[in-house]
Amino acid sequence: MLDALFTPQTIAIIGASRRPGAFGHRLLAHIVAGGFAGTVVPVNPNADELLGQRCYHRIAQFAGRIDLALIALPAAQCREAVREAMEAGARAVIILSVGFKEAGESGAEMEAQIAEMCRLRDVRLLGPNCLGVINTDHSLFAFDAESCPEPGGISMISQSSSLCTLFLERLAGARLGLAKMVSVGNKADLSEIELLRALALDPQTKVIIAYLESINAGDAFVKAAEYASVRKPVIMLKAATTLSGRKAVAAHSGEMIGQDSAYGVAFRRSGVIRAESMGALFDLALSFSLQPLPQGDRVLVLTNAGGPGIMAVDAIERAGLTVSYLGARTSGLLRAELPAAATIYDPVDLLGDAGPERYRAALLAAMSDANVDAVVVIAAKRGSGELLADIAQEIVSCNHGAKPLSVCVLGGDTQAARDRLLYGGVPAFDSPEGAVAVLKAMVDYVAWRNRPPRVVTRFKVNRRRVERIISRRLRTGRLHIAEVKAKDILKAYDFQVPPGHLATTVEEAVEHADAIGYPVAMKIVSPEVVHKSDVGGIRLNISNRQGVRDGFDLMMLRIDQRLPEAWVDGIYVEKMLDRGQEVILGMHRDPHFGPMLMFGLGGIYVEVMKDVAFNLAPITFDEAMTMLTSTKSYQILVGARGEGGIDMAAIARCLQKISQLATDFPQIAEIEINPLLVCEAGIEPVVVDSKINLRAG
Amino acid sequence: MLDALFTPQTIAIIGASRRPGAFGHRLLAHIVAGGFAGTVVPVNPNADELLGQRCYHRIAQFAGRIDLALIALPAAQCREAVREAMEAGARAVIILSVGFKEAGESGAEMEAQIAEMCRLRDVRLLGPNCLGVINTDHSLFAFDAESCPEPGGISMISQSSSLCTLFLERLAGARLGLAKMVSVGNKADLSEIELLRALALDPQTKVIIAYLESINAGDAFVKAAEYASVRKPVIMLKAATTLSGRKAVAAHSGEMIGQDSAYGVAFRRSGVIRAESMGALFDLALSFSLQPLPQGDRVLVLTNAGGPGIMAVDAIERAGLTVSYLGARTSGLLRAELPAAATIYDPVDLLGDAGPERYRAALLAAMSDANVDAVVVIAAKRGSGELLADIAQEIVSCNHGAKPLSVCVLGGDTQAARDRLLYGGVPAFDSPEGAVAVLKAMVDYVAWRNRPPRVVTRFKVNRRRVERIISRRLRTGRLHIAEVKAKDILKAYDFQVPPGHLATTVEEAVEHADAIGYPVAMKIVSPEVVHKSDVGGIRLNISNRQGVRDGFDLMMLRIDQRLPEAWVDGIYVEKMLDRGQEVILGMHRDPHFGPMLMFGLGGIYVEVMKDVAFNLAPITFDEAMTMLTSTKSYQILVGARGEGGIDMAAIARCLQKISQLATDFPQIAEIEINPLLVCEAGIEPVVVDSKINLRAG
Repeated sequence: MLDALFTPQTIAIIGASRRPGAFGHRLLAHIVAGGFAGTVVPVNPNADELLGQRCYHRIAQFAGRIDLALIALPAAQCREAVREAMEAGARAVIILSVGFKEAGESGAEMEAQIAEMCRLRDVRLLGPNCLGVINTDHSLFAFDAESCPEPGGISMISQSSSLCTLFLERLAGARLGLAKMVSVGNKADLSEIELLRALALDPQTKVIIAYLESINAGDAFVKAAEYASVRKPVIMLKAATTLSGRKAVAAHSGEMIGQDSAYGVAFRRSGVIRAESMGALFDLALSFSLQPLPQGDRVLVLTNAGGPGIMAVDAIERAGLTVSYLGARTSGLLRAELPAAATIYDPVDLLGDAGPERYRAALLAAMSDANVDAVVVIAAKRGSGELLADIAQEIVSCNHGAKPLSVCVLGGDTQAARDRLLYGGVPAFDSPEGAVAVLKAMVDYVAWRNRPPRVVTRFKVNRRRVERIISRRLRTGRLHIAEVKAKDILKAYDFQVPPGHLATTVEEAVEHADAIGYPVAMKIVSPEVVHKSDVGGIRLNISNRQGVRDGFDLMMLRIDQRLPEAWVDGIYVEKMLDRGQEVILGMHRDPHFGPMLMFGLGGIYVEVMKDVAFNLAPITFDEAMTMLTSTKSYQILVGARGEGGIDMAAIARCLQKISQLATDFPQIAEIEINPLLVCEAGIEPVVVDSKINLRAG
Repeated sequence: MLDALFTPQTIAIIGASRRPGAFGHRLLAHIVAGGFAGTVVPVNPNADELLGQRCYHRIAQFAGRIDLALIALPAAQCREAVREAMEAGARAVIILSVGFKEAGESGAEMEAQIAEMCRLRDVRLLGPNCLGVINTDHSLFAFDAESCPEPGGISMISQSSSLCTLFLERLAGARLGLAKMVSVGNKADLSEIELLRALALDPQTKVIIAYLESINAGDAFVKAAEYASVRKPVIMLKAATTLSGRKAVAAHSGEMIGQDSAYGVAFRRSGVIRAESMGALFDLALSFSLQPLPQGDRVLVLTNAGGPGIMAVDAIERAGLTVSYLGARTSGLLRAELPAAATIYDPVDLLGDAGPERYRAALLAAMSDANVDAVVVIAAKRGSGELLADIAQEIVSCNHGAKPLSVCVLGGDTQAARDRLLYGGVPAFDSPEGAVAVLKAMVDYVAWRNRPPRVVTRFKVNRRRVERIISRRLRTGRLHIAEVKAKDILKAYDFQVPPGHLATTVEEAVEHADAIGYPVAMKIVSPEVVHKSDVGGIRLNISNRQGVRDGFDLMMLRIDQRLPEAWVDGIYVEKMLDRGQEVILGMHRDPHFGPMLMFGLGGIYVEVMKDVAFNLAPITFDEAMTMLTSTKSYQILVGARGEGGIDMAAIARCLQKISQLATDFPQIAEIEINPLLVCEAGIEPVVVDSKINLRAG
């Protein structure tokens, strides 16, 4: 799909410049120097030859067909250039120029026009305001940067130009190979979504890393990221996590979740490995591209320095990994090869005067020991730099590729040792914590890869009924759906609601109450009343006919006094339930990722303790259960209702039903069920109160 | 006090060796090469001259008086060497040899004997199993390491030999100056406590850094650390935080707090700046020693790369600092000096082609702007390494020392730029997050320095009464003090307890109940009964005489049936209280830091939500209030009891009283008041139930 971008046969450089140092000159120079094997078509109205290539005054002069056009012209000239490129057959265009959306409104307009033009002709557009593309496998270096790493297995997508450049330097410095680099710029057309899918299928790409500031379409992102993550590790650094103001929404769900935590949910769901900093992004790229994935979470520490060894053990425990010990046989064998003062347990301390042979003995023991899934090696400079480099060499020779190694090199003047490790395929880090952090990410990724298959249950529901209610509301612009109608919707989606009926006269109210059985609750139904209790519009625990009559009259009187203009649909007479254990279920449509489900225990646990769990719809039963169990207050639910206990599965099913409702109706902005009365096994939870908000338009 | 250690006039090296590479040879060589101006007395039975120094066969041959003796002999010979050194007048001894406590029991015994010998003669002992001491101001390099930094303001205390070495290298690499380095080894005598006090008063030491695995005496540590922190920044890395098993204790307080969090409380209390890793320890040392402290928490970001600038802003917000903006005047001035495409807000983006002059303009604006307390500068390599180095030089020239600068240098091949910054007194970091983290620590330290003066209230209590109860219990070995006696103790410490009396007969019980007024509670009092309800030993809400009679007889019958051998003191008849809002107060004696106070809301908030706050006794009123407000569930307390609200100050006073009780009686291991019934303003909280445990011996 992105062939024209990644493997073009003919490239036009529109705006190729004669002036060394100019953008359009550098770009051409990079392509030529990169050894591109296809045809290069520089376009410049004032040049006949550039860097040994024939130069065209206009692209139309070139007789053949263009695959990819690079445009390095002032912003105002780009549109025309894109048009000409398309006429010359270009199926992909990269605009490297600045002056578009990032520069203000008129730039944004130009950008939108060009994007639309490309879309109509099915031409893919990268940029504008980007550095270009690299595909080492195709000797394609259409990129504005000085250096390029060797071909290799890491591919990068970046929304920041500076991060592209910084990463190219770091990769080259570590002799790590690059597959593809895509600088996405303003993302007028191509974004992380298409690129994740393309790189997922790219045979050269072993690991995908990405730096993103924004995510275009959250739900498509989650799907694309998951598609890629099942095939290879996807490591992302998401910046601008605290900058953007948080959308103010009415329901709890929206208040509770930060922007950042929505990304967190999306990343967890799609298996994306999250880097918290540039350093971490690089460290993770290093380990995932050089080392095998671990089979389990048991990590052995080998060290020649006590303090750093202890810090590694601390870090392993803090990360929730398991500190592992050598088994009896291997520790016996190793003991024989180490001096008496060395310790074999907790961690393996080879002592300050350890040379390569002790490291070798310990590493071979670790590699052959079934108790060990991964190894952290501390190599601190205790003697000369040469000794350290020799140790590094020995570690490399023990790197058999069956279990991940993570080495922490400490001390000044350790470059030689680091280089030997990196060039030998062993990642080297600056700190014990850094060496452990990558293993933690690997263990988590393996767990995600091994997760059970996702099966989203479809409940039998009355979708038509909900469709009718919602479209009527949208037609009349009444976006807030209050309790009674919200319960209608939920009932259609297989929720239990208390029996109830709307009454427009006193007699009707009494009839309904008699039919339902006492005690009953009475609630005013009016589009103008949002908080019923503020206008005396709610009465509970009415135990007889006289109460119903008094309630009806009083309620009508009060609303006449307080909101004389209000339209009143009637009064809802509803079965009064015994209160018991309550929970809150919610959904708000995250601006980026779509329907975000929420679970929490009622009242204080949500309001004060902020003890809530989130996940993206649609969810499976397992995921719904995990939402329940991941709250701290889950224990309270377990303890409630004595021996039989609350029917947790029933709550999970309710979450699944909200998930289905939110997925079926993108018009719904927010759902809140507060509270849902939960019961012992066999009895369905009941919706005590609820509200739903629709999205305009 | 430690003059003989830090500024000796005469040093003996016992175990000085002729063999190059040997420990005792290196040590002598370092001292000689270090330019020590005093007298050096090498001792070796087989040498007459060593490295140009006269060598003594035995120390007794030296006619003068020794100040400091360094011992580098096999462990078994050290005791005799120490004896001889003391006879030669040594007032301080450093044992560098290994083979002591760290090697097993017999080593530990030797170590204890030597320490005792030193203590009796008032001779200070450093080590054993250490690398020695450096005092650059005295040209004293009695240390087993290859390199030594220039004289400067950083002093280090380290329990890990490898960390000493690693730090010496890093300091030298960054051209940071060292004042003193003390390798404490096994800490047989001298520990962080004496050294913190000494370094606090040392005029050469501007910043103290420490690496500790264990802390000898927590309460003395807190005092010493606070003593030092008020004088200069004390930065500590505490390792082995997860290794040590957690002490199993009965009360909530002990279960709730992890070992690590006890250190956290102690560090916060004493103003210690906590480093989470070796890298952070060094980074913090860098900033605190090179840069001024900020006046506030408003941080401006200057950058030449968008992505990293955004990451810096993210980090500032995550750290709880304030992202600052230039004021109208300075931003106007700066605007005139930057190209149109540069942004002045959020963060200040100087663009990828920024040279030194743009950095200068922005830095001068930031330095002169009253809205800015500290500046994070991002210098990413966008062009050549030389340009970056020039930028670095310009940053150095703008480093006026009034506001802290924190620079993040990004890109490959940036050593020249880093060196210029460091040599120019500006700290350079690898990541935006790292540059922000040091500023956060500085802001926190300033806040600690500016904390209000600590005034610990002394309540008027009946200390004699508690003394009598406790000493009687200790004599009879009854360490668990159950409800009734525990309430006696608390009453003596000015707590409100419900009125109540012990009854040994039915008639007495009725009399007491009549006197107290109904309803009453009845509780069995027996040293053998720990859980009263298990044996039917508690009855609540008894509303009349007949109830008291029935209760008494039934309780006696039940205990006869279930615990026929149990000694019964009688039955406690107590006023029954209306239940209301309840909290838990606790104290457990942390094995390291002493009396640790706990506060939490009752029941679920402590048990399930683990929402508790800790602090070390003695506490001030402000500290007690902070314990209350730092729990999440504090809001629940605020909301309780309607408008007047709970009397928070009264709860804080109760915490202070527990603090006083725990401080007055080191024999008390644990106190738990669960629940304390709290009331509206003007009504004292009441102890509903309590237990106290004593420490044996």
